[in-house]
Amino acid sequence: MTVTYSLEVSRTRLCGFSKLLIRWKASIYKTLWREVAIFIVFYYALSVLYRYILMENQKRIFEKVARYCSVFTDVIPLSVILGFYVTLIISRWWSQFTSIPWPDRTATMIASCVHGSDERSRTIRRTLGRYLLLMLLITFQAVSTSVKKRFPSLDHIQETGIMTAEERKAYEKINLCGSKWWIPAQWFACLTLRARKEGRIKDSIQMDTLLLEMCTFRSFCGDMLNYDWVSIPLLYTQVVTLVTYTFFLTHLMSKQSLESDSNHVGEVDFYVPFFTLFQLFFYMGWLKVAEQLINPYGEDDDDFELNWCLDRNIQV
Amino acid sequence: MTVTYSLEVSRTRLCGFSKLLIRWKASIYKTLWREVAIFIVFYYALSVLYRYILMENQKRIFEKVARYCSVFTDVIPLSVILGFYVTLIISRWWSQFTSIPWPDRTATMIASCVHGSDERSRTIRRTLGRYLLLMLLITFQAVSTSVKKRFPSLDHIQETGIMTAEERKAYEKINLCGSKWWIPAQWFACLTLRARKEGRIKDSIQMDTLLLEMCTFRSFCGDMLNYDWVSIPLLYTQVVTLVTYTFFLTHLMSKQSLESDSNHVGEVDFYVPFFTLFQLFFYMGWLKVAEQLINPYGEDDDDFELNWCLDRNIQV
Amino acid sequence: MTVTYSLEVSRTRLCGFSKLLIRWKASIYKTLWREVAIFIVFYYALSVLYRYILMENQKRIFEKVARYCSVFTDVIPLSVILGFYVTLIISRWWSQFTSIPWPDRTATMIASCVHGSDERSRTIRRTLGRYLLLMLLITFQAVSTSVKKRFPSLDHIQETGIMTAEERKAYEKINLCGSKWWIPAQWFACLTLRARKEGRIKDSIQMDTLLLEMCTFRSFCGDMLNYDWVSIPLLYTQVVTLVTYTFFLTHLMSKQSLESDSNHVGEVDFYVPFFTLFQLFFYMGWLKVAEQLINPYGEDDDDFELNWCLDRNIQV
Amino acid sequence: MTVTYSLEVSRTRLCGFSKLLIRWKASIYKTLWREVAIFIVFYYALSVLYRYILMENQKRIFEKVARYCSVFTDVIPLSVILGFYVTLIISRWWSQFTSIPWPDRTATMIASCVHGSDERSRTIRRTLGRYLLLMLLITFQAVSTSVKKRFPSLDHIQETGIMTAEERKAYEKINLCGSKWWIPAQWFACLTLRARKEGRIKDSIQMDTLLLEMCTFRSFCGDMLNYDWVSIPLLYTQVVTLVTYTFFLTHLMSKQSLESDSNHVGEVDFYVPFFTLFQLFFYMGWLKVAEQLINPYGEDDDDFELNWCLDRNIQV
Amino acid sequence: MTVTYSLEVSRTRLCGFSKLLIRWKASIYKTLWREVAIFIVFYYALSVLYRYILMENQKRIFEKVARYCSVFTDVIPLSVILGFYVTLIISRWWSQFTSIPWPDRTATMIASCVHGSDERSRTIRRTLGRYLLLMLLITFQAVSTSVKKRFPSLDHIQETGIMTAEERKAYEKINLCGSKWWIPAQWFACLTLRARKEGRIKDSIQMDTLLLEMCTFRSFCGDMLNYDWVSIPLLYTQVVTLVTYTFFLTHLMSKQSLESDSNHVGEVDFYVPFFTLFQLFFYMGWLKVAEQLINPYGEDDDDFELNWCLDRNIQV
Repeated sequence: MTVTYSLEVSRTRLCGFSKLLIRWKASIYKTLWREVAIFIVFYYALSVLYRYILMENQKRIFEKVARYCSVFTDVIPLSVILGFYVTLIISRWWSQFTSIPWPDRTATMIASCVHGSDERSRTIRRTLGRYLLLMLLITFQAVSTSVKKRFPSLDHIQETGIMTAEERKAYEKINLCGSKWWIPAQWFACLTLRARKEGRIKDSIQMDTLLLEMCTFRSFCGDMLNYDWVSIPLLYTQVVTLVTYTFFLTHLMSKQSLESDSNHVGEVDFYVPFFTLFQLFFYMGWLKVAEQLINPYGEDDDDFELNWCLDRNIQV
Repeated sequence: MTVTYSLEVSRTRLCGFSKLLIRWKASIYKTLWREVAIFIVFYYALSVLYRYILMENQKRIFEKVARYCSVFTDVIPLSVILGFYVTLIISRWWSQFTSIPWPDRTATMIASCVHGSDERSRTIRRTLGRYLLLMLLITFQAVSTSVKKRFPSLDHIQETGIMTAEERKAYEKINLCGSKWWIPAQWFACLTLRARKEGRIKDSIQMDTLLLEMCTFRSFCGDMLNYDWVSIPLLYTQVVTLVTYTFFLTHLMSKQSLESDSNHVGEVDFYVPFFTLFQLFFYMGWLKVAEQLINPYGEDDDDFELNWCLDRNIQV
Repeated sequence: MTVTYSLEVSRTRLCGFSKLLIRWKASIYKTLWREVAIFIVFYYALSVLYRYILMENQKRIFEKVARYCSVFTDVIPLSVILGFYVTLIISRWWSQFTSIPWPDRTATMIASCVHGSDERSRTIRRTLGRYLLLMLLITFQAVSTSVKKRFPSLDHIQETGIMTAEERKAYEKINLCGSKWWIPAQWFACLTLRARKEGRIKDSIQMDTLLLEMCTFRSFCGDMLNYDWVSIPLLYTQVVTLVTYTFFLTHLMSKQSLESDSNHVGEVDFYVPFFTLFQLFFYMGWLKVAEQLINPYGEDDDDFELNWCLDRNIQV
Repeated sequence: MTVTYSLEVSRTRLCGFSKLLIRWKASIYKTLWREVAIFIVFYYALSVLYRYILMENQKRIFEKVARYCSVFTDVIPLSVILGFYVTLIISRWWSQFTSIPWPDRTATMIASCVHGSDERSRTIRRTLGRYLLLMLLITFQAVSTSVKKRFPSLDHIQETGIMTAEERKAYEKINLCGSKWWIPAQWFACLTLRARKEGRIKDSIQMDTLLLEMCTFRSFCGDMLNYDWVSIPLLYTQVVTLVTYTFFLTHLMSKQSLESDSNHVGEVDFYVPFFTLFQLFFYMGWLKVAEQLINPYGEDDDDFELNWCLDRNIQV
Repeated sequence: MTVTYSLEVSRTRLCGFSKLLIRWKASIYKTLWREVAIFIVFYYALSVLYRYILMENQKRIFEKVARYCSVFTDVIPLSVILGFYVTLIISRWWSQFTSIPWPDRTATMIASCVHGSDERSRTIRRTLGRYLLLMLLITFQAVSTSVKKRFPSLDHIQETGIMTAEERKAYEKINLCGSKWWIPAQWFACLTLRARKEGRIKDSIQMDTLLLEMCTFRSFCGDMLNYDWVSIPLLYTQVVTLVTYTFFLTHLMSKQSLESDSNHVGEVDFYVPFFTLFQLFFYMGWLKVAEQLINPYGEDDDDFELNWCLDRNIQV
C-alpha cells in the first residue's frame, strides 16, 4: 500500500522535509540497510586483507588497483544517467496509476440507462456490474502478484460469486492464443443489446452512452495490461543497474585508505568511510526509486483497492 | 493563498525580475531566515570551538575532518538532482491545480436540462447543485488541512445547510471501508432519474449530458483524492532531502577557515561565510520550492476558493 | 506583438540562424543593452578604484576578495538551473497561448443552431455572440495590462456596444467576492433556454451542442484567468534571479585583472572583459527569455488579437 | 521532403546506426560542409598569419589571446544549452507535424451525412469537400514557402478549380484586418444549413456531427497558423546561436598550436585540428537540427502532401 | 517480441535489479558482444603494433597521438547528449506503441449497431470487421518488416480470406500517388450507409457512433504510418552516432598504456582495459536502446499481435 505523507508536510515550515527523514516505513533506511550492510562487510574484508594478510609487493599491486579504480569513478556521470532514468520511470509510474480503471462511473451509467424495477431488470443491472468486476479482476490477476496470490485460479473467482458456473464454462470453452480478459466485455455488449430489445434501455442514445462507457472501462484495462506487457526496454534497465553497481564495486577498492598514500586528505576516512556510505545511500536510493516504481502492481499496491471495490459492489 | 506577481513583471524592462527580489510575502527570505539563522549559529559555534577551546592536536584532527568534508562537497551533483526533482514536483503541482473541480459548468447544465418553474422543479435544481457542493466539500475536507480546520466534522457541514439532517443520516448509515466521498454522486444520479421520470428532464439526450457532466465533475474530485493519496514516493523525497541536508552539514565543517591552511584563498571568508550562506539560500530555496508545492492544498490555498463557491451558490 | 521569424529561416542553409543575429526588434541587444551598460560602468569604476585610489595594503584586500569571488563563480551551476527554469517557463508560455479562447467556433455553432430569419432570431444570434465577446473582454481586461489600458472601466466597454446599459446594471448589481467574468456565460445559457422554448432551437441535440461549445469557450477563459492567478511559485523565480544576479556581482570583482597576479592568462583581459560581457549576454539573455514569457499578456501580445476579433464580429 | 530511414535500421544488429553514417541526403555532411570549409579557411589563415607574418612581440600578443580564449571555451556549457534547446524544438516540431489537417475524415463524414443521389446532392457534397481543400490551401499558402511558390496568388488557386470565380469575388470583397483563411469554414456551415433545410441532411445529429468534424478540421488549420505566427521567442534562438558561434570563434584562436607552448600535448594537432573539426561537426550539427526543424513547412515538406490531397480529391 | 520482466522485479527487495543482470535474451550482453569483440581486437592490434613493430621514433609519435586523444575524450559531454537523445526516442517509442490500433472496440460497436439475425446481416457484420482487419494488415505491411515478410504481396493477403478477389480488383484499379491504405475505410463507410438504408442500422445515432469509431481506428492507422514516414531527423541520429563512435575510436588510442608514461596510474590497465570496456558497454548500450526503439515494428514486435487478431477474428 502506498505511503501517504503529504498531509504531514502541509504545515511545518522550519523543519520542512526533515520530519520525513525519521520515518521508517517505506523509507530509504528500510529499503537500503541490507545493501549498506553488504557493502560494509566487503569493505572491511578488503581492508583487513590489505593490512594484515597481503605481502609487501602484493600490497603495491593492491594500491595500484585502488588508484586505478579511483581514477575511473570520476569518469562515470552517474547523476545524469540516474536523473534521466528515474524521471522516465516516475512519469511511467504515474501513467500506470491513472490507468487503473474504476467501475463506479460505468456503474452509475448502468443504473441510469437500464430502467425497470422488476426482478429481471435488477438482475440485468447486477449482471452488467458483475461483468465489469470480472474483467477488472482478470486484469488485476494478470498484472499484480498480490492479487494473483489471493485468486490463483478461476475457482477462487467463482467462489466470490463474481463468476457463475455457466460463465466459467463458457469462458473456458473459448480457446485463444493470447489473453481472454476482454471476454466479459463481449458478454456485457450482448446483454446490453438484449436489454435494448426487451425495452429496458429506452433508446439508442442511452445504449450508446452505456456501450461507450464500457469501452472506456475496457480500454483502461487494456492499458494496464499493455503497461505490464511492454516494459521499459530491458537493455536500458540493465545499463543503468550495471553502471550503479560497478560504481560501488570500484568504490570498494578506491576508497580504501592506503599506507603509501601521502596526498591523502586525512586519517578520518580510515575507520569508517562515511561519505562513501552516504553516496551509496544516495545513488542506491535513487535507483531503488526506479526499482520500486517499475512494477507498481507488486506487493504493495492495489490489493486493497480491489477489496474495496468488491465490498462496495455488494452493497450497491 | 497564492501570491500573484505576473502583472508586476509585465512592464518593467530594465530591472525585470529584480523588483521581485524585494518582496517579503511568500519570498525566499521569509521562508528561509530560520534555516539561515540556525546555520549561522552552528557555524560560529564550531568556529569558536576550533579557535578557543580545542587543544593543538585536537585542532589537527579538526582540520583533517574539515579537509575531508571539503573534498566530499565537490562530489555531490546537487544541482542535477534538485533540477530533476523540482521539475517533477512542479509539473505535479500544476496538474493538481488543474484538477480542482469547478461546479459552475455542471450548474449551468443543471439549469439548462431540468425544466419547469414550479416549486418542485426549483427544489430539484437546488438539490442537484447542493449535491455537487457536498461532494466538493467532502473532497476538500479530506485533502486540505485548512478546510479540515473549518469543517472538522459533519456537524459543521450540516450547519452550513449543504447537507440536510436526513442526508446525513443516510450518509452515516452507509458503512464502507474506504472513503465515502462519491455518495452524493449516487444521490445526484438517482435524483436525475426521478426528474426524468417526472418529465422535468425532457429527453435522454439531456439526461445523458447532465450525467456525463456530473461524472466529469466526479472524476475531478477523484483526481484530487488520488493526488493526495498517492504521493511522490517517499524514498525519492528522502533521498533528495538527505543529500541537501548532508551537503550543508559538510559545509559547516569544510568552510571553516583553518589556521594551517596555506593555500586558502584569503582571509575574507574569515568572519562571515558569504558565499556559503548564498549557496544555502539557493539550494535550500530550491528544495523549499518542492516543499511548498508537494502539498498545494495546505495552509495557503483553496480555502478562499471554497468560500467563494459557497457564497456564489447561495446567490445563484 | 509577437515577432515572427520562421519564414526567414526556412530557406537559408549556409548562414542559417546567423541572419537572425542582426535583427534588432525583440532581439537580445535591444533587451540587454541597459544591463550591459550598467555592468560596464561598475566594472570600470571598480577598476579605477583599485588602480588609482586604493593604498597598497588595501589593494591586497581587494585582491583577496577578487580571488575569493573567482573561486566561488566556478561553484554555481548556472546553466543547469537556467536550463530547467527556462524549459518550465516556455512550456507554460505555450500552454497560455493555446488557452486563448477564439469565439469563431462557438459563433459558427450559434449560426447553425439558432434558426429563423426574422428580426427576433437575428437579435438572439447577435446577442449570444455579444455575450461571448463580453466574457472574452472581461477576461482580457483582468489578464492583460494593455487591454486594461484601453478599457479601464465598464464605461469603455459599454461605449463599444458590447455591453448594453441594462446589462451593465444587472452586472453591477451582482455582488460577489471574487471575479464576475463568468456572468455573461449565465446570460448565454438563459438566452439559449429561451430560444429553445420559442422553438428557434429545434431540438435538445442542438441546444446541447451549443451549450457545450459555450462551456468549452468558458473554460478557456477560466484557464486564462487561472494562469494569471496562479503564477510560477515566487520562490522559484526569486531563487533563479538571485543566483544570476549574484553570479554577475561576483564577476564584477573576480574578473578584475590584478597586479600581483602571476598565473594570470595574459593582459588581454585588461582593457575590456570581452568574455565576461559575453557571459553576461548569454546568461542574462536566457533569464530574459523567462522574464519575457512569464507574463505573455503584457505589453506585447493579444491587444491586436482582441481588436481583430471585435472588428470581425461587427462584420459578421 | 522528409527522409525516411527507419526501415533500414530495423534489421541490422552489429553495425546498427553505422549504416546511417554513410548517407548523403539530408545528412550531416551535406548540411555542414560549407561551415566546415569556412572554418578551415579561417583557421589556416590565422595559422599562416601567426607563423610567417607576425613580428616576435606580436606573436606574444597572439599567444596571449589564444590562451585567453582557451580558458574561456572551458566555461561555456554548450552541451546543456543545446540539449534543452533542441529538445524544445523537436517537441514543437512534432506537434506541428501532428497538427497538419487531413481532409479525409471530414470527407468521409460528408459522404455519410449528406444523402441523395441526384445532381444537386452530388454538387453539395463536392462543394463541401472543395471548401475544406480551399481552407487547407490558404493555410498552407500562408505557412509554407514552397506552397507559396506554387500558388503565389488567388489566380493560381482559381485555375486549379478549387475556387470558383464567384467565390473569389466574395472572398475578396470581405475586408478584414488579419487573415481570412477561416472564410471557407463559414461557407461550409452555411451550405450545411441549406442542405439540412432541403432535407438532404436528415436530422440534427448528422448535421452536428458534420459541423463538429468541420470545426475540428478548422482548428487544426488554426493550429498550423498559430505555430507559424508565434515562434519560439527570438531571444532564445539568438542566445543559443550566439553561444555556438562564439564558441567556434574562440576555438579558431584557442586551438592554434603555439610555438612557446611547452605543456602542449603534442604536435599532432599541428597540421589539422581534427578534434576541433569534430566538435564543429557535432555542435553545429546539433544546432542545425534545430535550424531544420524550426520551420518544418519550409522547402522540404508538405508540398508533396498537398499534391497528394489534391489528386486524391479529384478522384474521389 | 517484447521481453517482459516486470513481474520478476515485483518481489525481490535485496538484490532488486541485480537479478535482471543475468538475463541473456534481449540483454546488453547479447546485443553488444560483437561490438566488444571488435573493440578488443583492434585494441590489441594497436597494442602489438606499438610494442613490437614500431621504431623508437615512431613510438614517440604514437604516444603523442595517444595523449592528444586522451585530452579530447574529456571534452565530449557524451552523457548529456545520450541522455537527451534516448529520452526523446523512448517517449516516441511509447507513443508509437500506444498508436497501434486494436479492432476490438470497433468490432463491439459493429455487433451492437448492425441489427438483424438473417444471413445478409451477418455477412454485413463480418464484412465490416474484415475491412478493419484489411486496413490494419495493409498498415502493418507498410510499417513492419516482419509482417512484410509474411505477406509480401496482395496475393498472400487474398489467401488468408481477408480480401476477396473482387475487392482486390477494385483496390488495384484505384491509381493514386501515395499509399492506398485508407481505401477499406471508404468501403466501410459505404457499406454502413447501405446498411442504414436497408434498416439494419436503426437510427442516425448508431450510424454516427459506428462511423466515429471507424474514424478513430483509421486515424490510429494513420498515426502508425506517420511515425514510420517521418522519422527523427536523420541529422540528429547521425550526430549522436558520430559522437559515440568517435568517442570509442579515440579511446582505442588514448587508453593504450605507454612506455614513457610516468604519471600513469598503474600497470593494472596493461593487459585488459577493464574500465574502457565497461564504458563501451555502458555508452554503447545506451545508444543501442535508441537503436532498438527507433523502429519498434522491426523484427521483434507486432507479428505476434497480428496473428492473434487474425485468429480471434475467425472465431468471433
